[in-house]
Amino acid sequence: MKLYSYFRSSASFRVRIALNLKGLPYDYASVHLVRNGGEQLAPAYRAIHPDGLVPALEDEGQLLQQSLAIIEYLDETHPQPPLLPAAPADRAYVRSLALQVACDIHPLNNLRVLKYLTGTLGVSDEAKQQWYRHWVTAGFASMEARLAGDGRSGKFCCGDQPTLADLCLVPQVWNAQRFDIALDAYPTIKRIHDHAMTMDAFALAAPGKQPDAE
Amino acid sequence: MKLYSYFRSSASFRVRIALNLKGLPYDYASVHLVRNGGEQLAPAYRAIHPDGLVPALEDEGQLLQQSLAIIEYLDETHPQPPLLPAAPADRAYVRSLALQVACDIHPLNNLRVLKYLTGTLGVSDEAKQQWYRHWVTAGFASMEARLAGDGRSGKFCCGDQPTLADLCLVPQVWNAQRFDIALDAYPTIKRIHDHAMTMDAFALAAPGKQPDAE
Repeated sequence: MKLYSYFRSSASFRVRIALNLKGLPYDYASVHLVRNGGEQLAPAYRAIHPDGLVPALEDEGQLLQQSLAIIEYLDETHPQPPLLPAAPADRAYVRSLALQVACDIHPLNNLRVLKYLTGTLGVSDEAKQQWYRHWVTAGFASMEARLAGDGRSGKFCCGDQPTLADLCLVPQVWNAQRFDIALDAYPTIKRIHDHAMTMDAFALAAPGKQPDAE
Repeated sequence: MKLYSYFRSSASFRVRIALNLKGLPYDYASVHLVRNGGEQLAPAYRAIHPDGLVPALEDEGQLLQQSLAIIEYLDETHPQPPLLPAAPADRAYVRSLALQVACDIHPLNNLRVLKYLTGTLGVSDEAKQQWYRHWVTAGFASMEARLAGDGRSGKFCCGDQPTLADLCLVPQVWNAQRFDIALDAYPTIKRIHDHAMTMDAFALAAPGKQPDAE
């Protein structure tokens, strides 16, 4: 398998955790989103992923995109350890937590959107930072309330083993910390993040551990 | 089952199509996102969905949120007709198309985000419309290229039966038309949309057919 990744991309981070948890070796292909005017926009990477987004996973001649679709694919083709619980209502709960990150927080704060705000809309750097914090804190407040109030919470979001929800939450926490967002108001999220980072599968997937880290 | 829905919400529209395709009867609970200062923000609905987002599905005492998680749940609990193909790589393809709508287009253009742009950031109505078009046309251009170039395209996004991808694409087309975005540049998307709308499951899920339609 070959993973097209950027060390700071939280969607790439999600997939790296999944590959590590499944014990799947992979080639790391760096696509630097800033250097050279954005390597994701160069023809070489456009041939892999026409939109110039990371991650993309190459497996058995297939080119897969969208981190959540890639992770579900890995879970279906390499079922152990499972990244979703067994019962449909629990699977829906885990997927809904993952989607809170993947739909309600992350798309508003990724690089191309922040660039549109400051470039096309001429928004100030301060207003951009506020925008970033607004969506992270709204999303985290909601997730904290769910996690703190749900009997399914354990060492991880749902029970004591990592699921798709944790694979999305942990990289989002890393992003939040990078933007100096304090986690004091989200003790359950912080506890889950801190526990996850004691596991090699999470720690070795972190941005600072990637070959293209700066 | 009880679906908390707003006629114009495209995430609600996705779930309504799934319920119709599965032949599942449900109670329609309208949550009007504009009237009364936004019924989704009132305590009655906050007790159902603390974030005040639609849709939410109540089934057997469970309250489910996030449209894609709800649809996967319906597909697992009521497998016929299936909303995902059988092979893992095809499932990943369908999910990635669905996520292109659900992560790369829709979150940038929903009501709370447009409100932040015009309210907090003081963006003009014209610039807001441009923002809307920018993300829709970028996303549709990418999806059109994938659909036009992939041998799996049929009457629907993947083959001749509707999948999760169509359930996301069709409501996004409805939204685009509402914002006067021409579909000429996206002939495959238009063809799939037009075919889908000949089916009762899609047509009867459309905003104009809902009890709270205006």
